[in-house]
Amino acid sequence: MNYTDNFNPTISDQDIFNEIELERDSIGYYNLVNQDTSKFKQYALNVKQKNIVVIGIGGSTLGTYAIYKFLKHSKTLKKQLHFLETTDPIDIKSKIESIDLFDTLFIVISKSGTTIETISIFKYINSLIKCNKDNTLIITENDSKLNKFAKTHDMKTFDIPKDVGGRFSVFSAVGLVPLAIVGIDIDKILEGIKDVHNSFFNKEQYYKRILKKARFFVEYKNSFNINVVFSYSSRLEGFNKWYIQLWGESLGKIDINSTRQGLTPIGIIGPIDQHSFLQLIVEGRRDKTVTVIKIDDFDNNLKIPEIKLEGLEELEYIENIEFSSLINQQADATIESLNNLNDIPCDVITIDGVCEKSCASLMYEYELLTSVCARFMYINAYDQPGVESGKIILKQKLKNL
Amino acid sequence: MNYTDNFNPTISDQDIFNEIELERDSIGYYNLVNQDTSKFKQYALNVKQKNIVVIGIGGSTLGTYAIYKFLKHSKTLKKQLHFLETTDPIDIKSKIESIDLFDTLFIVISKSGTTIETISIFKYINSLIKCNKDNTLIITENDSKLNKFAKTHDMKTFDIPKDVGGRFSVFSAVGLVPLAIVGIDIDKILEGIKDVHNSFFNKEQYYKRILKKARFFVEYKNSFNINVVFSYSSRLEGFNKWYIQLWGESLGKIDINSTRQGLTPIGIIGPIDQHSFLQLIVEGRRDKTVTVIKIDDFDNNLKIPEIKLEGLEELEYIENIEFSSLINQQADATIESLNNLNDIPCDVITIDGVCEKSCASLMYEYELLTSVCARFMYINAYDQPGVESGKIILKQKLKNL
Repeated sequence: MNYTDNFNPTISDQDIFNEIELERDSIGYYNLVNQDTSKFKQYALNVKQKNIVVIGIGGSTLGTYAIYKFLKHSKTLKKQLHFLETTDPIDIKSKIESIDLFDTLFIVISKSGTTIETISIFKYINSLIKCNKDNTLIITENDSKLNKFAKTHDMKTFDIPKDVGGRFSVFSAVGLVPLAIVGIDIDKILEGIKDVHNSFFNKEQYYKRILKKARFFVEYKNSFNINVVFSYSSRLEGFNKWYIQLWGESLGKIDINSTRQGLTPIGIIGPIDQHSFLQLIVEGRRDKTVTVIKIDDFDNNLKIPEIKLEGLEELEYIENIEFSSLINQQADATIESLNNLNDIPCDVITIDGVCEKSCASLMYEYELLTSVCARFMYINAYDQPGVESGKIILKQKLKNL
Repeated sequence: MNYTDNFNPTISDQDIFNEIELERDSIGYYNLVNQDTSKFKQYALNVKQKNIVVIGIGGSTLGTYAIYKFLKHSKTLKKQLHFLETTDPIDIKSKIESIDLFDTLFIVISKSGTTIETISIFKYINSLIKCNKDNTLIITENDSKLNKFAKTHDMKTFDIPKDVGGRFSVFSAVGLVPLAIVGIDIDKILEGIKDVHNSFFNKEQYYKRILKKARFFVEYKNSFNINVVFSYSSRLEGFNKWYIQLWGESLGKIDINSTRQGLTPIGIIGPIDQHSFLQLIVEGRRDKTVTVIKIDDFDNNLKIPEIKLEGLEELEYIENIEFSSLINQQADATIESLNNLNDIPCDVITIDGVCEKSCASLMYEYELLTSVCARFMYINAYDQPGVESGKIILKQKLKNL
């Protein structure tokens, strides 16, 4: 009689940590903490145009948008960032009509260099205005066909490192260059990710919380197949979208035992979704974990004034409360009501403020959490074989037109 | 020996239909198809202000935003609609700074009349500009405290019928009045919902597809606990948000057998999320149904031009293709790749165009689908007891401040 098996053993935190340490040789995002950003800052300083249009899709835009959206109303930024990221013709037309193309720098971002949406839109822009070395910057892999095109036209390029995947690329040139151009402090961004990186690899606070959370999420993945991020600020709307890509595309995989894995990400915004999705969390099936994200200091003292509204005296207790306090009390009330139920797994991340460092730390924590979850699930977080078949079908359809 | 049970019997389509017909006596949204809109249109004609600011949250804004977002770039609208719907202070401040308050009509919408967020923001607005009968419109229940306030100040009011719940209220004054003011044809909206309403209650096309879909969703709710709406147009971003509230808050309930029910809604946008979430659908766990929504006619001939990009000749096959055709081919490629897998339930809704009627029909179909699913699940689609506990905790917290 013969017997073999390919069962996977239960894995210790130390095993996972060892594997993540090994990954650092081949997975580039871990090493972005130590990059030299002087060439990005130098380039940014010399940009004359007022409008910055990023042409890209998915990993080429979502992270940049997340940080820009987080900061844009609390800092005085010197330029406006726009994103052309979909083939919806009405979207392209309305965005282009709102921008002075003659005072615009176009940043074309595509890792492969042959992304259909990105090249389609770039061609369209070229029919409206001559794209040349003065108004176009290319960010791509250093041996892509798009890079060759750039060199032919003497256009400035920045490289996307080969070992940094699209959805993990926000802290490479992909995100840092556009953000530096509009006046965001990219050194502070690097400080934010370095803090988390070092804490994790020195086995301090972030190591402990990330390992604990990933182990819980994976251990209970069949009961709780949905992970809700409940962000208590509209500043985090872009972060939610970025998280959905990172989580969905990294963890939706077939594992080494040929079993389908996947934790489904949902991003909602408090207090808006407290008036809708919360009902589903509270009374619906117990298939969700909830992560509440709060902002400790909004650096904003907008206050509910003492104004009498006849008939509405019962609401006078809200007067003289700052809106930043109100929204955080709303978050706390939601957390308390969830915790009272005792059967909804819930954690709370409170970030310090509306600044570069806080946003970057939060995003880097989620990158590490994704990598660790993938290790627990015996899957590859960094590929995306599932989207290839649709791309092949599309190419054939378009060629047949 | 004694034996009793409270098991629910299997239910026929006709049983469900009978129950829905009975609901029409007590659930008001079914009857909005026959309302007289002349007073809305009359009021709209006389609005002088250029900016329209809706102050409201959840069901008071999401539906209006969905229709406005759907249409705003394809029609020439005479006024701009803005929404103040969150207590995020940075959001309030940045929106208010971008609007000329002296050329603004404020529409305060709250069904109960005492929504904390709405009244807080209204008080704040009152500290910036005097709200009076010339610049303020109130939409609320006819016996609410907000209504009393309006009467005291001789402000114009429109009623939210008592039997129309917030998330089902878009086709009442809640949505129709702001939309009429900015120049959207609300009679066309009513035509769109009437078509679907009549088809359903005459047991024609919509009856068949809604019953079939609801039965499938509920029958397989334990395997497929997530319903993804994959909208192939950025026009539908607001619709997705509205759908998430409608579906989540209506179906996340405890049923008559004290069992937790709930189907989790997800709204994604193609082609953007085809570069992210699609991977999870294709390779992840089989816990999702997918509804693709396409727009047949974008009424837009923006085209990918014949422009040579040296080095990128391999992509020349995309030239001379209209973007509207490209996005629909992308949708078709996604649908084909999902259907090839054979184990992902998928349906496709193709709406006619970017017009009032199409959008309204789509939304009304989803309202009916929600009501029918709730009947199959033995739950009440129209209440939201799960959010009450958080509200009580919040009130106490604020009073303690």
